[in-house]
Amino acid sequence: MNRERLLALLSAVQRGETGLEQAVEQLARLPFVDVPGARVDTHRALRAGLPEVVFAPGKSAAQIVDIVRTLRSAEQDVLVTRVEDELAARVSEALGAGDCDPLARTLWFGPAEVAVQGKGTIAVVSAGTADAPVAAEAARVARCFGNKVDMLVDVGVAGLHRLLASSDTLRTARILIVVAGMEGALPSVVGGLVDKPVIGVPSSVGYGASFGGLTALLGMLTSCASNVTVVNIDNGFGAAYVATLINRL
Amino acid sequence: MNRERLLALLSAVQRGETGLEQAVEQLARLPFVDVPGARVDTHRALRAGLPEVVFAPGKSAAQIVDIVRTLRSAEQDVLVTRVEDELAARVSEALGAGDCDPLARTLWFGPAEVAVQGKGTIAVVSAGTADAPVAAEAARVARCFGNKVDMLVDVGVAGLHRLLASSDTLRTARILIVVAGMEGALPSVVGGLVDKPVIGVPSSVGYGASFGGLTALLGMLTSCASNVTVVNIDNGFGAAYVATLINRL
Amino acid sequence: MNRERLLALLSAVQRGETGLEQAVEQLARLPFVDVPGARVDTHRALRAGLPEVVFAPGKSAAQIVDIVRTLRSAEQDVLVTRVEDELAARVSEALGAGDCDPLARTLWFGPAEVAVQGKGTIAVVSAGTADAPVAAEAARVARCFGNKVDMLVDVGVAGLHRLLASSDTLRTARILIVVAGMEGALPSVVGGLVDKPVIGVPSSVGYGASFGGLTALLGMLTSCASNVTVVNIDNGFGAAYVATLINRL
Amino acid sequence: MNRERLLALLSAVQRGETGLEQAVEQLARLPFVDVPGARVDTHRALRAGLPEVVFAPGKSAAQIVDIVRTLRSAEQDVLVTRVEDELAARVSEALGAGDCDPLARTLWFGPAEVAVQGKGTIAVVSAGTADAPVAAEAARVARCFGNKVDMLVDVGVAGLHRLLASSDTLRTARILIVVAGMEGALPSVVGGLVDKPVIGVPSSVGYGASFGGLTALLGMLTSCASNVTVVNIDNGFGAAYVATLINRL
Amino acid sequence: MNRERLLALLSAVQRGETGLEQAVEQLARLPFVDVPGARVDTHRALRAGLPEVVFAPGKSAAQIVDIVRTLRSAEQDVLVTRVEDELAARVSEALGAGDCDPLARTLWFGPAEVAVQGKGTIAVVSAGTADAPVAAEAARVARCFGNKVDMLVDVGVAGLHRLLASSDTLRTARILIVVAGMEGALPSVVGGLVDKPVIGVPSSVGYGASFGGLTALLGMLTSCASNVTVVNIDNGFGAAYVATLINRL
Amino acid sequence: MNRERLLALLSAVQRGETGLEQAVEQLARLPFVDVPGARVDTHRALRAGLPEVVFAPGKSAAQIVDIVRTLRSAEQDVLVTRVEDELAARVSEALGAGDCDPLARTLWFGPAEVAVQGKGTIAVVSAGTADAPVAAEAARVARCFGNKVDMLVDVGVAGLHRLLASSDTLRTARILIVVAGMEGALPSVVGGLVDKPVIGVPSSVGYGASFGGLTALLGMLTSCASNVTVVNIDNGFGAAYVATLINRL
Amino acid sequence: MNRERLLALLSAVQRGETGLEQAVEQLARLPFVDVPGARVDTHRALRAGLPEVVFAPGKSAAQIVDIVRTLRSAEQDVLVTRVEDELAARVSEALGAGDCDPLARTLWFGPAEVAVQGKGTIAVVSAGTADAPVAAEAARVARCFGNKVDMLVDVGVAGLHRLLASSDTLRTARILIVVAGMEGALPSVVGGLVDKPVIGVPSSVGYGASFGGLTALLGMLTSCASNVTVVNIDNGFGAAYVATLINRL
Amino acid sequence: MNRERLLALLSAVQRGETGLEQAVEQLARLPFVDVPGARVDTHRALRAGLPEVVFAPGKSAAQIVDIVRTLRSAEQDVLVTRVEDELAARVSEALGAGDCDPLARTLWFGPAEVAVQGKGTIAVVSAGTADAPVAAEAARVARCFGNKVDMLVDVGVAGLHRLLASSDTLRTARILIVVAGMEGALPSVVGGLVDKPVIGVPSSVGYGASFGGLTALLGMLTSCASNVTVVNIDNGFGAAYVATLINRL
Repeated sequence: MNRERLLALLSAVQRGETGLEQAVEQLARLPFVDVPGARVDTHRALRAGLPEVVFAPGKSAAQIVDIVRTLRSAEQDVLVTRVEDELAARVSEALGAGDCDPLARTLWFGPAEVAVQGKGTIAVVSAGTADAPVAAEAARVARCFGNKVDMLVDVGVAGLHRLLASSDTLRTARILIVVAGMEGALPSVVGGLVDKPVIGVPSSVGYGASFGGLTALLGMLTSCASNVTVVNIDNGFGAAYVATLINRL
Repeated sequence: MNRERLLALLSAVQRGETGLEQAVEQLARLPFVDVPGARVDTHRALRAGLPEVVFAPGKSAAQIVDIVRTLRSAEQDVLVTRVEDELAARVSEALGAGDCDPLARTLWFGPAEVAVQGKGTIAVVSAGTADAPVAAEAARVARCFGNKVDMLVDVGVAGLHRLLASSDTLRTARILIVVAGMEGALPSVVGGLVDKPVIGVPSSVGYGASFGGLTALLGMLTSCASNVTVVNIDNGFGAAYVATLINRL
Repeated sequence: MNRERLLALLSAVQRGETGLEQAVEQLARLPFVDVPGARVDTHRALRAGLPEVVFAPGKSAAQIVDIVRTLRSAEQDVLVTRVEDELAARVSEALGAGDCDPLARTLWFGPAEVAVQGKGTIAVVSAGTADAPVAAEAARVARCFGNKVDMLVDVGVAGLHRLLASSDTLRTARILIVVAGMEGALPSVVGGLVDKPVIGVPSSVGYGASFGGLTALLGMLTSCASNVTVVNIDNGFGAAYVATLINRL
Repeated sequence: MNRERLLALLSAVQRGETGLEQAVEQLARLPFVDVPGARVDTHRALRAGLPEVVFAPGKSAAQIVDIVRTLRSAEQDVLVTRVEDELAARVSEALGAGDCDPLARTLWFGPAEVAVQGKGTIAVVSAGTADAPVAAEAARVARCFGNKVDMLVDVGVAGLHRLLASSDTLRTARILIVVAGMEGALPSVVGGLVDKPVIGVPSSVGYGASFGGLTALLGMLTSCASNVTVVNIDNGFGAAYVATLINRL
Repeated sequence: MNRERLLALLSAVQRGETGLEQAVEQLARLPFVDVPGARVDTHRALRAGLPEVVFAPGKSAAQIVDIVRTLRSAEQDVLVTRVEDELAARVSEALGAGDCDPLARTLWFGPAEVAVQGKGTIAVVSAGTADAPVAAEAARVARCFGNKVDMLVDVGVAGLHRLLASSDTLRTARILIVVAGMEGALPSVVGGLVDKPVIGVPSSVGYGASFGGLTALLGMLTSCASNVTVVNIDNGFGAAYVATLINRL
Repeated sequence: MNRERLLALLSAVQRGETGLEQAVEQLARLPFVDVPGARVDTHRALRAGLPEVVFAPGKSAAQIVDIVRTLRSAEQDVLVTRVEDELAARVSEALGAGDCDPLARTLWFGPAEVAVQGKGTIAVVSAGTADAPVAAEAARVARCFGNKVDMLVDVGVAGLHRLLASSDTLRTARILIVVAGMEGALPSVVGGLVDKPVIGVPSSVGYGASFGGLTALLGMLTSCASNVTVVNIDNGFGAAYVATLINRL
Repeated sequence: MNRERLLALLSAVQRGETGLEQAVEQLARLPFVDVPGARVDTHRALRAGLPEVVFAPGKSAAQIVDIVRTLRSAEQDVLVTRVEDELAARVSEALGAGDCDPLARTLWFGPAEVAVQGKGTIAVVSAGTADAPVAAEAARVARCFGNKVDMLVDVGVAGLHRLLASSDTLRTARILIVVAGMEGALPSVVGGLVDKPVIGVPSSVGYGASFGGLTALLGMLTSCASNVTVVNIDNGFGAAYVATLINRL
Repeated sequence: MNRERLLALLSAVQRGETGLEQAVEQLARLPFVDVPGARVDTHRALRAGLPEVVFAPGKSAAQIVDIVRTLRSAEQDVLVTRVEDELAARVSEALGAGDCDPLARTLWFGPAEVAVQGKGTIAVVSAGTADAPVAAEAARVARCFGNKVDMLVDVGVAGLHRLLASSDTLRTARILIVVAGMEGALPSVVGGLVDKPVIGVPSSVGYGASFGGLTALLGMLTSCASNVTVVNIDNGFGAAYVATLINRL
């Protein structure tokens, strides 16, 4: 179901041609009956003209192929996230399409260049090479959602000169997504350098007292910079989603 | 140091009349040398024309009086947060001024009506009566920071009819701050009803398995609504700070 | 009590020589030498006319075959739970029988339609597609235990319209089992919509701050709806067991 | 608002005399506008003819007096829970009424003998003398909610003979509430002796590795008895609420 | 180095023929130089005439073969613990000897019947079939250490009749080792039935809120029976070691 | 069993009309109506000729006086534990008796010198001055339970020379109770020096990462010495109880 | 016992005039018999010519007076740590001496200027005003231990310009002690700016997800700067102690 | 980039031939652009003349080969850490060089004998055979960083005689690295025997209540020896890095 069809339905409601109950029925049952794996946020995404997002873990290649085919036949763009290489290959092959980004672990079915709708640039900043997949996911999602993105990698707090050398990039961004594992200190430092909202994404990178990202998560939540909010561990998608909403304000 | 003086200094820098080093010196040392308890975020706040914020816990009445007096003599508005009734009374008395909000635990030194600078409305939504202080703090801070605020209280997830009855308020907000203790489910439900960024504030309200807000915090971090980001437990101030930044974009 | 004595007892019952009450007494007090893998709850289950339940994890195909064969030869219905596909296939093949439900991970040896003994309907409600196996287990167990079951899937709290559209189903249920992972908020919302007992089942679905179901568990325990009680993470079986007992009251 | 008025309103809705929207308005706004501290569950409680319950912690004597007075003037019975002795005394004095139960920490405004509506008996079982307040709260709430209650105290698992000596009481109960601190093993043992639903209430009694009731809570959640569900630590009220719902089935 | 050689060395020390330093050197360096994987407790074990114990995890078959061969050539009995089937098979084959107990995961090099030196019987009691490996390890170690052992399996607290039926076995034991997973309540119940020391062994059996044995561990530490002490999760060996020391008093 | 029957039974014993075995049987099977605050372990304690133990926390002076008076009139010795100075003073005064040990926080009603029944000496070893109350409780309880006790204080692992200087005391003990806070390493070191059972008691002494004794508790549970078992944090009483049972073997 | 007396004793040992046993006796028993509250580290401290340190918590004014008097009469300098204002006042008054530092919560009995023995400067760096007490304790202890100290306060990571403005101070230090609460990120940033060992001291400053310093502690342990080691929460003393040892190398 | 080139660049800066900005550019961009996996600490390491260190986890053989080749061609020594056997073999083969230490899991590209630059000896002490890999990593890194190293293995606290027999080795060390799993008590005991800084390295060795090294970590942080600081679990590299910095002071 694409945006046009949705608008048609809704204006039928406004004109009184379609009852409220009936509209709800259609919204709740139409294409989605066939695509049980599509995200819960589907309806809101649709309203904003965003592509569908399919979260791959726990789904078989066959299930993903099914979902994507259904959505594509409804002229909907689709982004598959958290899709490992082999699974991505099998899905692409079956569909004869799909732009795979192995670092970001995404598979994209849509235009090579997504039209920019966000008002400013989203900066995606990450601390170490190991945080790269989460940062790449955030960047990829943000681009597919119609944002201009600047990436800044390997600018950990223990080597401030790199970060400071990029302060222009930081300051020109309208929203910043900052990914860090280990002690998760980067959002605090970046937050202190800018006047814009910073979304911290703790990554599960690390060992021992990192406890799978818990330390980074707690560190970001207790950040001494007041402009930092936080999403779940490794949730590059969520950060990009919120950043998109803010960037359209 | 008010905004005017800051602008004067900075344009002197732009015109080359004041060197960079010198400017940093002035910024770092000027009034602040005398007010060690002022927030770390001071400089950014200043740039945005925001009032100073003083975090009361751990400070004596004498220290707070000192800080406020210094800032007021520099024509700066000041908001004291987390200030208990008795302390607020002593500070107000000593200064012969100050607008105390006992529920929000704030003390305000500035205009009765702060000029609105935010582009839209910030909705502050809370689940139960026990969350009221945190919600009140968020609302008060947001208003002192120049935002229009809508409050929606006592709309917990176990009584959906109230929340749904207010869906207009939710949908007209540009940003939403949602405060909840116990299981912290309200941001997920609100997040599902709107297309705007939602900032979840876990409150320490509850007993037993609430673990002082930890359960609400974890619940918000794992929200199934993608438009939710989270701040620290009871951090109404931080939520309002970020919402202000977003509302000025 | 060895197998022979068990068979003797059961056939005496069949011939009417031993009364039901009397047999139950004997079964409840003497030991069960031959089927070491049968559940601890065996005796009570027997007294209530419930099928035997065998918990598969940690048991080999040979052990399960043995247990099932013994019980079947005593004309007892048997339900194997938490049985993975391959294991289920091997057991079925060895016994030349068994109705496998791959989603619920159960293997059933009994009538295709179990006679309904529960007084009302048990609703099994789940939040996301990923919670499906736990919900399916609960539903399957409830049906094998003689209950009428209504299932409601994919009704997460971030998409309230679906849940509200099913409020009739919710309200006609006599007991509700609500499965949710992530923040585990669904039992609170459902609990607010009905006057009946709600059994919350946290699922281990999620990542990062989900901590394997701990967040959902804590969320359900601190539910602001007073009609919610909770069982262990992923314990669809236990929820169905208790719901069965309530449904026979 | 008493039950009669509620029924009047609802039948007006059924007859079409009052619109749905209008009814919701009345339900959401009527007396409750004036009693912000009344429980979220109010509406459901009303429908079932249950008294109002006011959770005292965080409320001043004046606030409680206010709520109770409003509800009483609407001919509603009221139960205040978690009310410490001194507070109870002040509220009683102000209202010139109120039946205080110091062990249960409740204050009751209603008939001395509540008419029994539950179909069977609820047994409230507790392990040690220190669990007495939680058990007493459960018993008191259950009685105020119209149930017949049997209490069994000081029957800890380390002294089985007492528990076994009371097995008749256990077996005649329709639902059992079992309170225990420390290792929280009592629900497992009781659960093994009966065929009825058991609601475990972990108490915060203990020291060291009890961790304020966490150990008892985890112990009950992992009970090897399948008929046990669990509520929050010290939540005697919640256990009684659910038991009441079950007892009316 | 066997006990005889050790006694010879020590009496040489007593007669002044061997200096203290020299004796320490011999004790610290002799065969043990070659067997780095032998337990730290070696010397104390030797003094008590106990067999050597080799903890298998982290050791290769070659390393274990080496250690066992060295010790056997010194006429020392050896017990290998936590040895998985395949590894046990490879070690046995290489040495052409070894009595493997697959349930207990042990490999024994010593007399088929170890001479009894303990003064009484050690009872090893376990709750469920899943605890069997830990209980079997405790029993096997206790027998190899020269104790008479009574085993009582599948006597969980949710089926008290079995446990009570065995109360004679419980009461005749001089020391009791009680193994339980899940809520770990069995030591409390057993502790209440006997006047003897009970050693609780939490097992890692369970799922969800069992947290790998943590719940059982905490439950045993907070036991309401005063005669219970506790060892690490799954530490059947340690329980048998301490029970042996007590049984020789 | 009411007080009268208890007195009758005990005086029959005194007159020799009822044998000890027979009386113990009666005591173990019948209920104890009048002294609700006496420990759960009462019956077993009685059988072993141990004094009654009353755990003071949560009891008023009046309740304790009541319990002690009842037990004393039945010629039973009584030990009150965890009794703070002021409470102890009030109880002593009311009863005109009682030997108070302020460090151990005990109050003793019995002979000044308890007859020794334990076969050997119990050593009570503690790490720092801050552990003294827990060690003193263990020592006091052990003496009241008829054991010879050796105390060794201030022998922490960071000052080994003191501990080694006392190795004779360690080696002559039949059982050792070792109390330590902070990292809780003392039981491991002591355990390595002796061949006897060591009961580790973690104390809640410490700050920061001590987490109220949790670190010491975990440290003792993972001790590399195999002869260490553990009781709850600060549970000097429990350690002495078990040591007494072992010392009578 | 001062250093001179200690040297006299030890050289008597070297000359064979005092036996080893005898020397140990003297070391273990002499003044220390009378001062049970002096630190465990006494002997090592003495060897290094450091003053005695008395940890005040849990000690009465009388006990502290006693310890200090004994040590002073033995010509020993004494530093009392963690001593609250009122207690410090009472001790000072009783002894008619003592230099109290209220911020550092120390009480010093020794020369106003301690002779410098450390080879370089120890920098004590702290993030916020709330960390001041811990930083002050570290600085005070370091000075009393004969080190030159540079303090740098209020240089949190969210305001990098202040920290960078002080990089000379950072770079000239031989060892750095860095105190931070909340997310504890400062040691990582400082560690990245210097080539010297950095000792991180997590402070318990903060609220909510700070968990009493746990978050700062975990953050420092997972620091991405390799030159950071960590001590316990709020352990300013320990950091200064280790820094002193390093500074004397 | 080797040290010589770095010095050339920096002296060009000092002579004013190269601007500060320009120098930063070169430092930040030069060889490192090509070697994204090299450690963040690179620059500081370079300044100190230390080899590069590459952390292997998460890198493919191809990536490691690339990094090493680039650095080697710049005449830089390289140490790869945490490299499993098979990966090490593939890297060595591809480069036709590399000294693999399987126990330490390192791969070294540099001189067989690294010139000693540290002023004293670093002792690496470990408790059990299972801690060997972490201890070996620490020792290997320390040697590659130009330190003389003494190793002391298998000296756990439960067998003090071995540790005491090595006290000379402990006392002659300038810095000590102490590795221990389980209860992590060894640093406390070693810390009590020496006057030098002790760096504790908790290892993840153990099971059950070891919680992957958490218990050892907490134990070291709460050490009663004041000369102990702590690094992350299994962080042998970090301990050696800090010890190197100290050893050069």
